[in-house]
Amino acid sequence: MQKVFITGVAGFIGSTVADRLLANGASVVGWDNFSAGQEEFLTGARQHSGFTLHRGDNLDADALTKAMAGCDFVIHLAANADVRFGTEHPGRDLQQNTVATFNVLEAMRANGIKRIAFSSTGSVYGEAPVIPTPEDAPFPIQTSLYGASKVAGENLIEAYCEGFGFEGYIFRFVSILGERYTHGHVFDFYKQLLEHRDHLRVLGDGKQRKSYLYVQDCVDAILHVATQRTAEKAKHRVQIYNLGTAEYCQVTDSIGWICAHLGLNPRLDFTGGERGWIGDNPFIFLETAKIRATGWQPKLTIQQGIVNTLQWLQKNQWVLARR
Amino acid sequence: MQKVFITGVAGFIGSTVADRLLANGASVVGWDNFSAGQEEFLTGARQHSGFTLHRGDNLDADALTKAMAGCDFVIHLAANADVRFGTEHPGRDLQQNTVATFNVLEAMRANGIKRIAFSSTGSVYGEAPVIPTPEDAPFPIQTSLYGASKVAGENLIEAYCEGFGFEGYIFRFVSILGERYTHGHVFDFYKQLLEHRDHLRVLGDGKQRKSYLYVQDCVDAILHVATQRTAEKAKHRVQIYNLGTAEYCQVTDSIGWICAHLGLNPRLDFTGGERGWIGDNPFIFLETAKIRATGWQPKLTIQQGIVNTLQWLQKNQWVLARR
Repeated sequence: MQKVFITGVAGFIGSTVADRLLANGASVVGWDNFSAGQEEFLTGARQHSGFTLHRGDNLDADALTKAMAGCDFVIHLAANADVRFGTEHPGRDLQQNTVATFNVLEAMRANGIKRIAFSSTGSVYGEAPVIPTPEDAPFPIQTSLYGASKVAGENLIEAYCEGFGFEGYIFRFVSILGERYTHGHVFDFYKQLLEHRDHLRVLGDGKQRKSYLYVQDCVDAILHVATQRTAEKAKHRVQIYNLGTAEYCQVTDSIGWICAHLGLNPRLDFTGGERGWIGDNPFIFLETAKIRATGWQPKLTIQQGIVNTLQWLQKNQWVLARR
Repeated sequence: MQKVFITGVAGFIGSTVADRLLANGASVVGWDNFSAGQEEFLTGARQHSGFTLHRGDNLDADALTKAMAGCDFVIHLAANADVRFGTEHPGRDLQQNTVATFNVLEAMRANGIKRIAFSSTGSVYGEAPVIPTPEDAPFPIQTSLYGASKVAGENLIEAYCEGFGFEGYIFRFVSILGERYTHGHVFDFYKQLLEHRDHLRVLGDGKQRKSYLYVQDCVDAILHVATQRTAEKAKHRVQIYNLGTAEYCQVTDSIGWICAHLGLNPRLDFTGGERGWIGDNPFIFLETAKIRATGWQPKLTIQQGIVNTLQWLQKNQWVLARR
């Protein structure tokens, strides 16, 4: 990886990968439409001579193709990452995740670039019958437009690996936490508690069990696997890895850690029901033996990741006003 | 099913479903862009007062939405069904299969229609590690753009069943054979043997093992399951069924039956290799216990289906000139 193209470079994970690659001596060509990305996250990257930024949208195939020229690896992170509101605008996931991924692949083909890493999601398993869920779990039924659009992105990459000799790395993330985190339950809870410290509205019954991973651990995993080139000799030139910690927590556990850190004891108002929203999965826990077998392991626990996230939000309250 | 909307109504399967529904007393609103559909296949349907035909393309969302008004069930069959040439025009499967299915779902939502049957494919299993392959086989790696685009269609339907209360029936077909068959190996072989009766070019090594189903058995299955409404009380309001016979044959078996029927003994020229083309699956055999448990079973064997297909092609040689 000499010159890496990153879609969604101004996002939470994208900017963190960019900083890491630049620190390691690679060049980075960043691509973002700034619909969710933050200029502030690129402050460090901009100080590197190896960093170039292009403003553009994955749905603008021509501009994307031009911007990608000369790169040798693509890390495709740009996406509509909002899993909750899919039914309010059903076309958004299809366009921003599926069609966008197709455009990225076609831009790579036009530029003769064959190596790609892609951020997928544990949501692709729907409500998995096997927990912890391995990569080869039973063929899932999709329960959200977000999950459907991400599987479609995975499948396009797989077909390009088989049909065009691409080398693909697909990562099915649990929820990612840490510095530059801009959406998710820690964000929502912290924002609520700043507004009203005595009570907290919780979607569902609070018994949902979820998994989280610290962003630096996530970036470690992506770069570790891409450097090992595990897909180069794989059957279909593609490798899929679940990415998470070997633990999960209940929403109420997380609330306990957040409140302890903030020194608060709010009344909890549960909206009720097993699911927080349509398509919510009440239990997400991924089997991560495959990625751990490559030598990677996470450094932080879920609790440590949540506390780091809170500390960053406390120091960067500007981000709360952006959404 | 009082008034059924059929996409791809002028196609092989679409026109056969239409004839059957009309004979059963249902009304049919047909939709086709005639890119692959044949006017001749609608000769019978047009004689019914219950049949209406709209010419249009699934990518024209407005016209599709208008045409669907007043229907209570959608059978979505229109697709790019050419699995072999995906890499020559990578956007075609995405547009004609994935985006088209999204447009069908949105048109249903706009019209308050909630019940859909969809023709998917055994190709969604890629190179399945379990044979015969059940519906809940391990999460597959896609090996063709066609397979990828059909899974994406399935997944969109599943997300609409969960998110919007749709009732969905997804059928993963093996190759379908019979009257009005217009593409596939029997078509190719028969056409070749008309041109040169002494030799036959065969893609791959001829040892590929494939499954086939007779079109009337296929239509029986779709209507049987949709009438039973098996998805109405299913967990996510969607049911997925493999559709095939409980047997498979080798390409050379099929060649033997075709040549015996035609009284020919051509030299076989194999192009060689385990796969006939990029993304070809050398062994397709689906587990059909789930659909058989609903009471359906096929009436014809693969051999009988192939002979029926040949007899129809012999009587309808005009179709050979159309492609």
